[in-house]
Amino acid sequence: MREIGIGIIGGGYMGKAHSVAMAAVGAVFNTPLRPRLEMIAATTDAKAEAYRAAYGFARGTGDWRVLVADPAVEAVVIASPQETHRAIAEAAFALGKPVFCEKPLGMDIADSKAMVAAAEAAGCINMVGFNYIRTPASQYARALVAAGEIGQITWFRGEHTEDFAADPTAPAHWRHQGRANGTMGDLAPHMINAALALIGPIARLSADTGTVYATRPSPAGPVAVTNDDIGQFMCRFANGAMGHLSFSRVSTGRKMGYAYEIVGTTGAIRFDQEDQNALWLYRAGDPPGMRGFRKILTGPDHPDYLPFCQGPGHGTGYQDQIIIEARDFLQAIATKTNIWPTFRDGMEVNRIIDAAHTSAASGAWIEL
Amino acid sequence: MREIGIGIIGGGYMGKAHSVAMAAVGAVFNTPLRPRLEMIAATTDAKAEAYRAAYGFARGTGDWRVLVADPAVEAVVIASPQETHRAIAEAAFALGKPVFCEKPLGMDIADSKAMVAAAEAAGCINMVGFNYIRTPASQYARALVAAGEIGQITWFRGEHTEDFAADPTAPAHWRHQGRANGTMGDLAPHMINAALALIGPIARLSADTGTVYATRPSPAGPVAVTNDDIGQFMCRFANGAMGHLSFSRVSTGRKMGYAYEIVGTTGAIRFDQEDQNALWLYRAGDPPGMRGFRKILTGPDHPDYLPFCQGPGHGTGYQDQIIIEARDFLQAIATKTNIWPTFRDGMEVNRIIDAAHTSAASGAWIEL
Amino acid sequence: MREIGIGIIGGGYMGKAHSVAMAAVGAVFNTPLRPRLEMIAATTDAKAEAYRAAYGFARGTGDWRVLVADPAVEAVVIASPQETHRAIAEAAFALGKPVFCEKPLGMDIADSKAMVAAAEAAGCINMVGFNYIRTPASQYARALVAAGEIGQITWFRGEHTEDFAADPTAPAHWRHQGRANGTMGDLAPHMINAALALIGPIARLSADTGTVYATRPSPAGPVAVTNDDIGQFMCRFANGAMGHLSFSRVSTGRKMGYAYEIVGTTGAIRFDQEDQNALWLYRAGDPPGMRGFRKILTGPDHPDYLPFCQGPGHGTGYQDQIIIEARDFLQAIATKTNIWPTFRDGMEVNRIIDAAHTSAASGAWIEL
Amino acid sequence: MREIGIGIIGGGYMGKAHSVAMAAVGAVFNTPLRPRLEMIAATTDAKAEAYRAAYGFARGTGDWRVLVADPAVEAVVIASPQETHRAIAEAAFALGKPVFCEKPLGMDIADSKAMVAAAEAAGCINMVGFNYIRTPASQYARALVAAGEIGQITWFRGEHTEDFAADPTAPAHWRHQGRANGTMGDLAPHMINAALALIGPIARLSADTGTVYATRPSPAGPVAVTNDDIGQFMCRFANGAMGHLSFSRVSTGRKMGYAYEIVGTTGAIRFDQEDQNALWLYRAGDPPGMRGFRKILTGPDHPDYLPFCQGPGHGTGYQDQIIIEARDFLQAIATKTNIWPTFRDGMEVNRIIDAAHTSAASGAWIEL
Repeated sequence: MREIGIGIIGGGYMGKAHSVAMAAVGAVFNTPLRPRLEMIAATTDAKAEAYRAAYGFARGTGDWRVLVADPAVEAVVIASPQETHRAIAEAAFALGKPVFCEKPLGMDIADSKAMVAAAEAAGCINMVGFNYIRTPASQYARALVAAGEIGQITWFRGEHTEDFAADPTAPAHWRHQGRANGTMGDLAPHMINAALALIGPIARLSADTGTVYATRPSPAGPVAVTNDDIGQFMCRFANGAMGHLSFSRVSTGRKMGYAYEIVGTTGAIRFDQEDQNALWLYRAGDPPGMRGFRKILTGPDHPDYLPFCQGPGHGTGYQDQIIIEARDFLQAIATKTNIWPTFRDGMEVNRIIDAAHTSAASGAWIEL
Repeated sequence: MREIGIGIIGGGYMGKAHSVAMAAVGAVFNTPLRPRLEMIAATTDAKAEAYRAAYGFARGTGDWRVLVADPAVEAVVIASPQETHRAIAEAAFALGKPVFCEKPLGMDIADSKAMVAAAEAAGCINMVGFNYIRTPASQYARALVAAGEIGQITWFRGEHTEDFAADPTAPAHWRHQGRANGTMGDLAPHMINAALALIGPIARLSADTGTVYATRPSPAGPVAVTNDDIGQFMCRFANGAMGHLSFSRVSTGRKMGYAYEIVGTTGAIRFDQEDQNALWLYRAGDPPGMRGFRKILTGPDHPDYLPFCQGPGHGTGYQDQIIIEARDFLQAIATKTNIWPTFRDGMEVNRIIDAAHTSAASGAWIEL
Repeated sequence: MREIGIGIIGGGYMGKAHSVAMAAVGAVFNTPLRPRLEMIAATTDAKAEAYRAAYGFARGTGDWRVLVADPAVEAVVIASPQETHRAIAEAAFALGKPVFCEKPLGMDIADSKAMVAAAEAAGCINMVGFNYIRTPASQYARALVAAGEIGQITWFRGEHTEDFAADPTAPAHWRHQGRANGTMGDLAPHMINAALALIGPIARLSADTGTVYATRPSPAGPVAVTNDDIGQFMCRFANGAMGHLSFSRVSTGRKMGYAYEIVGTTGAIRFDQEDQNALWLYRAGDPPGMRGFRKILTGPDHPDYLPFCQGPGHGTGYQDQIIIEARDFLQAIATKTNIWPTFRDGMEVNRIIDAAHTSAASGAWIEL
Repeated sequence: MREIGIGIIGGGYMGKAHSVAMAAVGAVFNTPLRPRLEMIAATTDAKAEAYRAAYGFARGTGDWRVLVADPAVEAVVIASPQETHRAIAEAAFALGKPVFCEKPLGMDIADSKAMVAAAEAAGCINMVGFNYIRTPASQYARALVAAGEIGQITWFRGEHTEDFAADPTAPAHWRHQGRANGTMGDLAPHMINAALALIGPIARLSADTGTVYATRPSPAGPVAVTNDDIGQFMCRFANGAMGHLSFSRVSTGRKMGYAYEIVGTTGAIRFDQEDQNALWLYRAGDPPGMRGFRKILTGPDHPDYLPFCQGPGHGTGYQDQIIIEARDFLQAIATKTNIWPTFRDGMEVNRIIDAAHTSAASGAWIEL
């Protein structure tokens, strides 16, 4: 058992989630490498101090450069806005430090490419935080597909839909401005990453995006919305499967519509994050009359995907995914071997988002 | 109460369903116009006689022209293969007889146009059998949308997926040949009709279709499949809503995946024909904390859509939809007023299928 | 193919359901014996004539004795109030006619015994209408249990709960008066019959019953309720399994809570009539990791329980159960061999209800 | 913000869960009182050292008396076997220390009474760990009932069913011996506690218990099982509602069947821990036609029950319940005010279990 000093940049929702994860992961998984909450960075010293005290770090700083440069910080977690991702990652890699970066990987494909190049040049461990894919259910789905349990994949449909922006009377918000903050920038990365993880590379796509509410109210009058509320694309995967992905922040009633269905020649899988401990599996080879989608509750029967002691029916929640991510990041560091999804995987997601924007503008299919 | 002589052409699955419906509809709905099972037509006299005896008709014939021309046959139900639809309908309209025609309306858009022209020139009652849309749940969904209960519609997703052709080892079949027998011809009409009924006209679309299994086995060796196993399109409705429809006959595990979700600015609706007596409704105006999709069981609280005496929780099944169709067809005849969906509605469905094929071939969006 | 003249007594909800069933059953199942709607009886000639016209009978009568005695009436269906069951059945059996009787079998155990004796003395076909048990899903459940597919049964829980009397402000009704009209008389028979059919004889029970609303409003002031709104019993089956059954007419939100779960040593089954085409099956012998309750949609894979041509995913509804009953009644007549549930089975249900009332009064377990 | 030294006795499953909770709770809830993982006790020094290292405690001990007596241990969490509960609690209370004790509260009612007496004599904070009731969904259910949102309660049905002992070929285990380790001792406490929390005191009950598998295999031959595999009771609550509770460790297919339904005069609630982030609510006052059970996903709309920042649809898991318990225990200590459920509540649960055993033996109803 060895300690590692962790520095986290950002103390908002995801910064908090990673802080809790780093505090808990050692006990949960009995990790050989044990995080020490060394430093947290925020935009001001005062905020950093508040986060430090709240989350239990040793030190806080209003300057992420201080954190990255501090010798006691041996690994960096980036949970700050996406426009900061690239500079932070480049600075950390320059010092040979491993980096975990929240999705998406920078602002755009240019950022992603630079970040991948920096990581690979430095030979540093790098990982992107597409956290939902780390539920035991989705990891088990991935393993079932990879093992050929549902045969050759013929169809994939995925969505990431929420309703946080569904109320047209709610006030204008920074999320309504800037391409990277739209639905394609904010929600699409999760499900594109899932599609790549579950099915494999996407070969071509045709997309459509839309702004459902052209303006949002503000005290000073209506404010124009400059990014997408909703988006979708049809695609073909490299393995020939047909696919469809859709994304929305205005899907009234949907709280966590991270959901997919995978159809294969001998079976099918369904998942919905709103019931995150259940995976639905259909096996065409079951005896006739007994065929049906079975609701599998993840638990001790899935030790490879839920590797900590957990009683039957003891469900995981959102925080558990982040703890599993922390475990994998620590393991990658300890073994000096990257664990999926790396920055390169994150770049691939950005490349697909880029293509989707291009296709939506032109109306044509894009080859990837 | 008055009798009307019914002639049904075709004694297979749908011919039987319509025969049972015509035998039952009078008692179920206490219809003023009462069907008399006058004649059934099949491809041979022997088959017609077998159907006659099995379903309780007075007479049978191996020639549909005899049936159409018989003076005691006052209304015609077409349940024969789609290549026969046009000639039968034209003959019946020429004699001034009302016609109910199973979907799709003829082989292609040319057939549909001719059939609409014939119906409208003759001024005859005409109806198309998109039966699933007539479940009480879907009729109630339609009414909720029309009444603005979920606000302005922003998104529609529909599918009609089954797995009857999912097994690649199953032998070649006539359904694997000919554009009209593919998934776009066989399953797509139902969900396109639903989309039009629930949301309104489609303004443009971009489609993709695919043949998952290029060949099917036969004793004489592999037979090439000449139509589509799977298809999808993205669309925009005339009212601005974004949409997606998908269709498959190889959707392993899906038995009756006639399912849709409708998102509006103040609510959302979900439906799946595999649980056909339930409609899921979300109302954004519910008290905070109490919001959620509610599972409404159709029953006596929905008298406009389930207009016969039915106890609470007494679910409807597939046959009930056909009985409701029969009621509506009789009512249209009795009141000399067409009831949706007419041949013109059926033609519109075919026009969209046509556009989808064109788009899938060109990769471009099609304006409708 | 041979005709049989059917006489139905009662034209209310169940009388109508049986009329429709007799009109449809021949075509649906291609039965060798074909019903002819010969006569319907009501409490007055005028009502009988209205039913006759509405349901398509040849004749009507205000006197059930006329119907029973008419030579053209070859089989009798009793759908009149339970206080009339015994006299009608005895009269029909005296003439050697087969009788189908709606549940419950008479007013009480004394009626049941007399009806069984009359049926068996006359050697006539006799059947009781516990219709819900005839869904394909429940018939398949019964077959799975009988075949040992879930091992030895260790637990059964069943309920029949509805909410038709849940509103305490609704006016007093005849159902609130008289032991036979309470929940134990009205709803309990269905689920007790299911328990006997699925698991086998009940050896002993301990019951509790209650009147949730002591009075019901009427224009003349509150009216005392003299029967039970709610009831339950714990039991042991003869095979050693433990059980629990509950019944309610005040179960707010429940429309057709005819639901059960069966636990065995190697599997489990769940069913809820509110989704009547689905049976949930768990098999402990599935591969670890893949275990879960599977949702089986009844259809063509269940030909023994859904024996008519029905497409995959083409669900059955309430009326279909009655049509299946009609088929079985006709088959029993044609083969001169009783089909479950006979009057003796109906009597057994009444015996258990009787014991439950006794136990609820004394607080003690009753051996059966 | 102030630190408090925590001592945890037991390092098994629940000891680990409480250790993780104490490590995480400060950051998750920004608690004013911050736990310091001071000492963990196990049955040997070696085990204690292993737990210490794994969970991040400062010190370990093989003697719980050392832990309780240590001045740096300011609050005690008992996660050791139930035969140790009483002595530990008495020792801690004698020193004026707050105690959190895992359920059940000691071996039997005598233990419970002594523990309540000790806590109340010392005036110490005391809490029992019926953790499932602390899901946001169940806390919201409790609040809805208390606020009268579903009217007067008329019926409660609860179960705690699992299948960890369902396989009759699995080897004999210590859980198969001793009344306290049977289903009534192990699983019943959770659901009895829920019934009391949701509905109120139980006035009388009639119970049945059973041993499904009389023996369990072992290398030395079959071993007699001396406690119950299964149990149930009917009851009446003090407020007049009728109830039923059932418990099983042999419920094939059930992983976490902690489930209940509550029926009131104006609504109903359903919950199943296997989908722990959903609460189902039916409101009879909804517009006719729109009534149905709605699936509420707990989240930011339920700030009183899920009081930490959590995104919409970010579900909680088992560990979160333990963290919520830790928060409440800390808050009780900080405010010197007990928070439900106290030792007295735990004693009440044991009193009911006792009565159930008595009733099962005598076959009679027991007044409480």
